[in-house]
Amino acid sequence: MTELAAAKAALKTQAVETPSWAYGNSGTRFKVFAQEGVPRTPFEKLDDAAKVHEFTGVAPTVALHIPWDKVDDYAALAKHAEQRGVKLGAINSNTFQDDAYKLGSICHPEASVRRKAVDHLLECVDIMDATGSADLKLWFADGTNYPGQDDIRGRQDRLAEGLAEVYERLGDGQRMLLEYKFFEPAFYTTDVPDWGTAYAHCLKLGPKAQVVVDTGHHAPGTNIEFIVATLLREGKLGGFDFNSRFYADDDLMVGAADPFQLFRIMYEVVRGGGFSSEVAFMLDQCHNIEAKIPAIIRSVMNVQEATAKALLVDGDALDAAQRAGDVLEANAVVMDAYNTDVRPLLREVREEMGLDPEPLAAYRRSGWGERIVAERVGGQQAGWGA
Amino acid sequence: MTELAAAKAALKTQAVETPSWAYGNSGTRFKVFAQEGVPRTPFEKLDDAAKVHEFTGVAPTVALHIPWDKVDDYAALAKHAEQRGVKLGAINSNTFQDDAYKLGSICHPEASVRRKAVDHLLECVDIMDATGSADLKLWFADGTNYPGQDDIRGRQDRLAEGLAEVYERLGDGQRMLLEYKFFEPAFYTTDVPDWGTAYAHCLKLGPKAQVVVDTGHHAPGTNIEFIVATLLREGKLGGFDFNSRFYADDDLMVGAADPFQLFRIMYEVVRGGGFSSEVAFMLDQCHNIEAKIPAIIRSVMNVQEATAKALLVDGDALDAAQRAGDVLEANAVVMDAYNTDVRPLLREVREEMGLDPEPLAAYRRSGWGERIVAERVGGQQAGWGA
Amino acid sequence: MTELAAAKAALKTQAVETPSWAYGNSGTRFKVFAQEGVPRTPFEKLDDAAKVHEFTGVAPTVALHIPWDKVDDYAALAKHAEQRGVKLGAINSNTFQDDAYKLGSICHPEASVRRKAVDHLLECVDIMDATGSADLKLWFADGTNYPGQDDIRGRQDRLAEGLAEVYERLGDGQRMLLEYKFFEPAFYTTDVPDWGTAYAHCLKLGPKAQVVVDTGHHAPGTNIEFIVATLLREGKLGGFDFNSRFYADDDLMVGAADPFQLFRIMYEVVRGGGFSSEVAFMLDQCHNIEAKIPAIIRSVMNVQEATAKALLVDGDALDAAQRAGDVLEANAVVMDAYNTDVRPLLREVREEMGLDPEPLAAYRRSGWGERIVAERVGGQQAGWGA
Amino acid sequence: MTELAAAKAALKTQAVETPSWAYGNSGTRFKVFAQEGVPRTPFEKLDDAAKVHEFTGVAPTVALHIPWDKVDDYAALAKHAEQRGVKLGAINSNTFQDDAYKLGSICHPEASVRRKAVDHLLECVDIMDATGSADLKLWFADGTNYPGQDDIRGRQDRLAEGLAEVYERLGDGQRMLLEYKFFEPAFYTTDVPDWGTAYAHCLKLGPKAQVVVDTGHHAPGTNIEFIVATLLREGKLGGFDFNSRFYADDDLMVGAADPFQLFRIMYEVVRGGGFSSEVAFMLDQCHNIEAKIPAIIRSVMNVQEATAKALLVDGDALDAAQRAGDVLEANAVVMDAYNTDVRPLLREVREEMGLDPEPLAAYRRSGWGERIVAERVGGQQAGWGA
Repeated sequence: MTELAAAKAALKTQAVETPSWAYGNSGTRFKVFAQEGVPRTPFEKLDDAAKVHEFTGVAPTVALHIPWDKVDDYAALAKHAEQRGVKLGAINSNTFQDDAYKLGSICHPEASVRRKAVDHLLECVDIMDATGSADLKLWFADGTNYPGQDDIRGRQDRLAEGLAEVYERLGDGQRMLLEYKFFEPAFYTTDVPDWGTAYAHCLKLGPKAQVVVDTGHHAPGTNIEFIVATLLREGKLGGFDFNSRFYADDDLMVGAADPFQLFRIMYEVVRGGGFSSEVAFMLDQCHNIEAKIPAIIRSVMNVQEATAKALLVDGDALDAAQRAGDVLEANAVVMDAYNTDVRPLLREVREEMGLDPEPLAAYRRSGWGERIVAERVGGQQAGWGA
Repeated sequence: MTELAAAKAALKTQAVETPSWAYGNSGTRFKVFAQEGVPRTPFEKLDDAAKVHEFTGVAPTVALHIPWDKVDDYAALAKHAEQRGVKLGAINSNTFQDDAYKLGSICHPEASVRRKAVDHLLECVDIMDATGSADLKLWFADGTNYPGQDDIRGRQDRLAEGLAEVYERLGDGQRMLLEYKFFEPAFYTTDVPDWGTAYAHCLKLGPKAQVVVDTGHHAPGTNIEFIVATLLREGKLGGFDFNSRFYADDDLMVGAADPFQLFRIMYEVVRGGGFSSEVAFMLDQCHNIEAKIPAIIRSVMNVQEATAKALLVDGDALDAAQRAGDVLEANAVVMDAYNTDVRPLLREVREEMGLDPEPLAAYRRSGWGERIVAERVGGQQAGWGA
Repeated sequence: MTELAAAKAALKTQAVETPSWAYGNSGTRFKVFAQEGVPRTPFEKLDDAAKVHEFTGVAPTVALHIPWDKVDDYAALAKHAEQRGVKLGAINSNTFQDDAYKLGSICHPEASVRRKAVDHLLECVDIMDATGSADLKLWFADGTNYPGQDDIRGRQDRLAEGLAEVYERLGDGQRMLLEYKFFEPAFYTTDVPDWGTAYAHCLKLGPKAQVVVDTGHHAPGTNIEFIVATLLREGKLGGFDFNSRFYADDDLMVGAADPFQLFRIMYEVVRGGGFSSEVAFMLDQCHNIEAKIPAIIRSVMNVQEATAKALLVDGDALDAAQRAGDVLEANAVVMDAYNTDVRPLLREVREEMGLDPEPLAAYRRSGWGERIVAERVGGQQAGWGA
Repeated sequence: MTELAAAKAALKTQAVETPSWAYGNSGTRFKVFAQEGVPRTPFEKLDDAAKVHEFTGVAPTVALHIPWDKVDDYAALAKHAEQRGVKLGAINSNTFQDDAYKLGSICHPEASVRRKAVDHLLECVDIMDATGSADLKLWFADGTNYPGQDDIRGRQDRLAEGLAEVYERLGDGQRMLLEYKFFEPAFYTTDVPDWGTAYAHCLKLGPKAQVVVDTGHHAPGTNIEFIVATLLREGKLGGFDFNSRFYADDDLMVGAADPFQLFRIMYEVVRGGGFSSEVAFMLDQCHNIEAKIPAIIRSVMNVQEATAKALLVDGDALDAAQRAGDVLEANAVVMDAYNTDVRPLLREVREEMGLDPEPLAAYRRSGWGERIVAERVGGQQAGWGA
C-alpha cells in the first residue's frame, strides 16, 4: 500500500466524538447569546449530532454530560442514537453546579460534600452500564481562590481517596479519563492543574485510569505535543478534548487559533501509535456566536486536515535528516507536509466513503438548519444552566 | 509636618469607590453561587456600600452600572445614598448583554446596532446629569472570536466615531474614562485591548477623555506600574479598577494575589502626583465564594495598606541611591517600606478619624450581615443577569 | 489584471531586508556555537547577503549594526554591496555593549552616559549620510532589574530628551524607527516595553519617527496583527523586525513557530495598505544551531508564502460575510487563503523573475556554503561580542 | 516551647546553599558586565561564599559547577572551604558548553555525544566522592529549536537510558537531583520541561532520584507552591534552586520579584515537613548589575524572612477556618503572618547566634568588598564562559 493509500485508509477509520453540550447554548460569564433552533432535550442533541456524522462520516459517537443529559431511560436514548446512525460515547460528570460545591466537590473539606460528589460519579458509572459507554470523563472544577483558603495537600489526599472509590467501581472495558486544567473556575489553586498531577493519580489508580489532554487547559506557551508524546510513551494518554484558544480556555473551534499546533499534536499522535490505539478524540468546544452544527462540522474537518497532514510527513526523510543533525532539512520535511493543501485528498476520501466531498455545503443544502429553527419552538433550550 | 504625619494626613483623605455590582451575586461561566442576604435593589446595594464606608471611612462613593442599577428616580437614589452617608459615583455603561450585541456594540458592523449602543451611552450621560456623577466609565466587550470575523481596522473607525459622539455630549466637569482589556469575552481580537489603544483614542477625543487601568486586564507579565507612571506623565490616567488576579481577569480581592505589585502601583501613583489629583480609585471585583461586604472592607483595607507603604518610601534616600547607581540600596529603600507592618499606623489613622481601628471586627459586631440575611427574603437577588 | 496576476506582481516587488548580524555567530547566554565559514568582516557579511538576494530575488538590502559593522570607509562598503547586487539598508544602533551602559544608555541616571549614548546615535546618522541609508533603527536595552533601582518616570523624561536631539539631526528622507520590547535584557522595567510607549514618543517627535514591530517582542498572547492594523491606521508603522518565537524573544526563523500568525500579520499589512507604502520588512533573527545562509533564504521564503496567502484572500467574499455577520463564512474565506499551497505560485513568480524556482536547492548547488568554509579560515569570526 | 521559640529554633538551623558561579561574572546574551574584585579561581569563590556564611550564619555550604570549578585537587578545595568555615555542597554538571552539545547532550541523536555527556556526569559523581558532596544536580539544556528537528519521544528514551546509567553509579547517601526548565536555551522543545517529566523519570530511577524546583523555570502563571506541596506529598522534592523572575528565567535575587510567592512556597515547605527533611535550599541566581556578595547576603536574608513568616502562620486558626469553609478568615490567617514585619525577630535570632543583627551593614563594615577589588587584579575573572 502506498503512503497516500495508507493515509486515506487511516482517514476513513478516524473517529471524532462530538459533545452533546456543544449543540446547546453556551456563553461567557458576561452573556449567553441563545440561538434559534437549539435542542431542548438530549434526544434533539443526538439528532443534531447525527447530522454531523451524516455529512462528515467520522463523528460516530456523542459524549453525554450528566446531569445536563439526564433521562429516565438511557436504553431509549441509546436506541434513539442508533436509529440515527450514531452511538453514545463518554459520560462526562458534573460536580460543579450544585450549590453544595461552592468550595469544591471531591476535594471539599466536608466529608458530606465529598460523599455527594463521589455518589454522583458512581451514578455516572451506572449510566455507563446502561448506555454501554466505555469512558468516564472526569473534570473537576475543584480548587481555591485565595491563598490559605484550604489545605493544598489535604485536598490531594481527598482527591486520591475519592478517585480510588470510583476506580474500584469500574467494570471490565471501562476507563476513567482524568482531565487537568490550568485554572478556571478556581483562580488560585486548581486541584488537578497539570498533566503531571493527573498522571501521578492515574499511575496509582491503575491501568484503567488515563489522562485526558484538553488542548485549551495549559499555561501560556506550553508545548502540548511534548505532553502528548510523553503520555503516549508512558501508556497513559486516554484521549483529547479538542478546542482552540488564543488566551485562556477560550473553547473556540479546534484548529481555529493555531492550526500548526494542531498538526504538531496530530503528528505526535501518529508517531506514538496513538492514532490506532484507544486514544479517544473528542471535541469540547463552545460555539458562543457562530452557528453550532456547521461549527462542529468545520471542527471535525479541521481535525481531519491536521491528521491528513500528519500522516503525510515523510518518515524516512525525517528520520534521515534527524540522524544527520540537519536542523533545516528535518524542519523542512515537517513543513512540507504542513504546507500541503490536503483538502483535495479529503474530498477524495469522502467520495470513496460515499459522502459529499463538501460536508458544509451538503449540510447547508439539507435544510436541517432551517428545519430546526422552524420546529424547535417553545420549551426550554439546552444550555449549561450556570 | 513630619513624613509620618503627612502619610497619615494623606491616608485620611483617601477615597476608594466601591462598585454596586460587587454587592450582588456573581460567578463564572460554570456557576453563580448565590449568597444569602444579597441586595435585591439598587437601594439595598447602597445600604451595603454605606456599611463599608461606615467602618472604613474611606469609601464615600458608589459606582452604578446601567442597566443593572436602573431606577425610575435617580434623584431618589442619590438622596437614599446621602441619607446613609455615601454618594453616587461613576456611571458604568453596559453594551454587552442585549441580544443585539452578539457581534459587538459600538464597533458592530451594522449601523443600527451601533446606534443602539451609542444611544445607551448618551442615556448614561443623562443619568450622570441626574445623579451628579462626574465620570462615565466605558468598558466594551466588543471584539471578535475568529480571524476574519470582522475587519479590525474598520472596527477602530466605528469605535472612534461612536466615542466622538458621546464625548461631545459630556458636560462641564464630566469625564469619559475608557477602559482597556486584554481579552474576554472576545477571544481573538478585543477592540480596546491595551493602554496604547485607549490612550490613542483619548488623545484624539480631548482632555475630558482619560484611560482607566483595570489591574486584571493585562497580558501575563505586564508591568502595570510602568503603564501607571507613563499615563500619569502623559496626563491621561483617569483612574483604576482595582482587583487582583493570578491568571486572567480573575477579579479577586485587590491585593490578594500580588500585594507587592499593588504597592509598586501605589508607589508610582504617589510618585506621579496621582494621589492628590483627579485619579479615581475604584474597586471592580467579584466575590464569588466569599462573603461580599467583608470582602469589600478587606479590599479597601488592602488598598490602604499598599498606599501607606508607598507613602512611607524614603524619597530622599531613594533618590540618592538611584543617582549613585546603587542598585541594591535603591531596591532596599523600596523594600524597607514594603516590609513595614503598616497595620498599627492604619489603626491610629482610624482612631483619629473616630473609627473603630479594626473595621472587619466592627462590621461583624454590628450584626449587619445577619440582619440582611434575615430581612432580605424573597424577591430577585441582584446579579449580572448574564 | 486578475487577482492572481496582481498577487504575482506584488510578490515580485516585495523587498525583505536581511540583517548583517544574522550572518555572524550568535547564541544564548549559555553558549555561542560558532559555525564554520562565518564572515569575519562586514564585507564578507555582504557577500553572504548578496547570495540570499541572488537566489530569492527579494532581499535587495542589508541592515548594518554599529559598531559591529563599523568600517573606515562606508562608501567602499556601499560600493562593495552594489557590486554584488545589494544595497545598504537601515543603520541599527548599539547602546548596550559598552561598559558604561550597565544601568542604561539614553535613560541612564548620569548625564555623561546619556551624552555618550546620544553621541553614538548621532554618529549613526552620520553613517546614514555616508551610506545613503534612509532608516535609523533604535532598540534600547535600557531598563531596570529591580523595583526602585531607578525612577520609571524620570527615565521617560531622559528618553524623550535624547530622542528629540537625534530626531532634530535627521535629514530629508531619513526616518527614526523606534523599536519596543517587552523584556530582556532588563528584567523589571524596560524603557520602551510596548507599542503604546513607542507610539507616544513617536507622536511627539514628529512624522519622521515611526514604530518598529519586532514580532518576538510582546507579552504572551498578544495579538500582533491588531497592533499592526492600529499602527497602520495611525500612520505610524515604520516597519517590522521579523522572527518567530514560542516563548520569549527566541529569534527563530520567521514563520517557523506560528505560520498562521505571520499570515494574519501580512493580511493586516495588505489590508492597511502597508505593503505598498514605506513599511520596511526586515528580518532580525539568530540562527544559533542551523546553517545561517540557508536559514535566511528559508526565512525570506516564509515571508513570501505568508504574503502570497494574504494577497489571495478574497476581499469581496470576506467583506460580504463580515457585513452579513456570518462568522463561520468570514473565517472560512480567510482560512481558504491560508490553506492554499502557494508554493507552486511562488515557483512561477521566481521563474518569471528569471530565478531558479527552488532557492534553497539552487543555493546548495552553487557551492557557496562549501566555498566559505574553505576560504574563511583564520581571523576573527563576526558575532555579537557579548 | 512557644510558637515563637519554635520559629526561632527553626530559623537557627536553616541552611541555604550558595552557588559558586553567582560570585563570578554573568550576564545576558547581549552583554556580560564584568565587576571588579570578582574571583579568579574556585578557591576565591569559596572565600567569598565564606563571607556570606560569616555574616548570615545560615549559608554553610557552597555548590560547585563542573567544569567551571574544576581543580586538580578536590581534597585541597574541600579543606580550603573548611578552613573558612564552609563546606562543599552539590555538584552541578554542565553538558551545554562543549561544541559537541549543539544539538543536545544526553538526548543527542548521536551515541558518541551521549557517551561524552554521560561520562561527564559519571565524572561528577567521582568528584562527589572526592568532595563528600551528597547531591548531583542535573540540569540539561537539551531540546530542539524547530518542529521536526529531532524525535521528541526518541529523546526521552535516550534521556532515560543515560540517567539510568548515572543512577547506578550513585553511592550510598548520594542523590541525583533532576531539574526541569520550561525553555531556554532550547526554544521549541525542552527535554525536561516540567515537573511531571522530571517526576516520571525520578519515579522510574528510584529513591535516590528526586526533583529540583528552580523557581524561575515555569510557564507564566504557574502555581509553584502547588508543585512543592505535590512533590512533598509524593516524597520526591529534592530541593530548590531559588531565584526570582518577572518574565522568564530572569535569575534575579530570590524574593525580589514576588515576595508573597516565596512566602507561599515556604509555607508549603513547612506544611509538608520539607523544612526538617532532606530538601536542599539552594540559590541559583545571576547578579548581572548589582554587587555580588551583598546581593547574595540579601538573597539569603530574603529566604529567611519568607521562612520566618511561614513559620508564624497560626496553624490552629488556619485549620479551624479551613474546616469551617470561612474563605476570608482562612486567607486572613495567612495574610496576618505575611504582613508581619519579621525583621526584628531575625535580628534577635542573629544576636542569639552571636552574629551582627544586620548582615549587610556588617559585611560593608568588614571591608571585604574593597579588599577583593584591590587584591584581585590580573588573572582571568570567573564567569560562565559562554
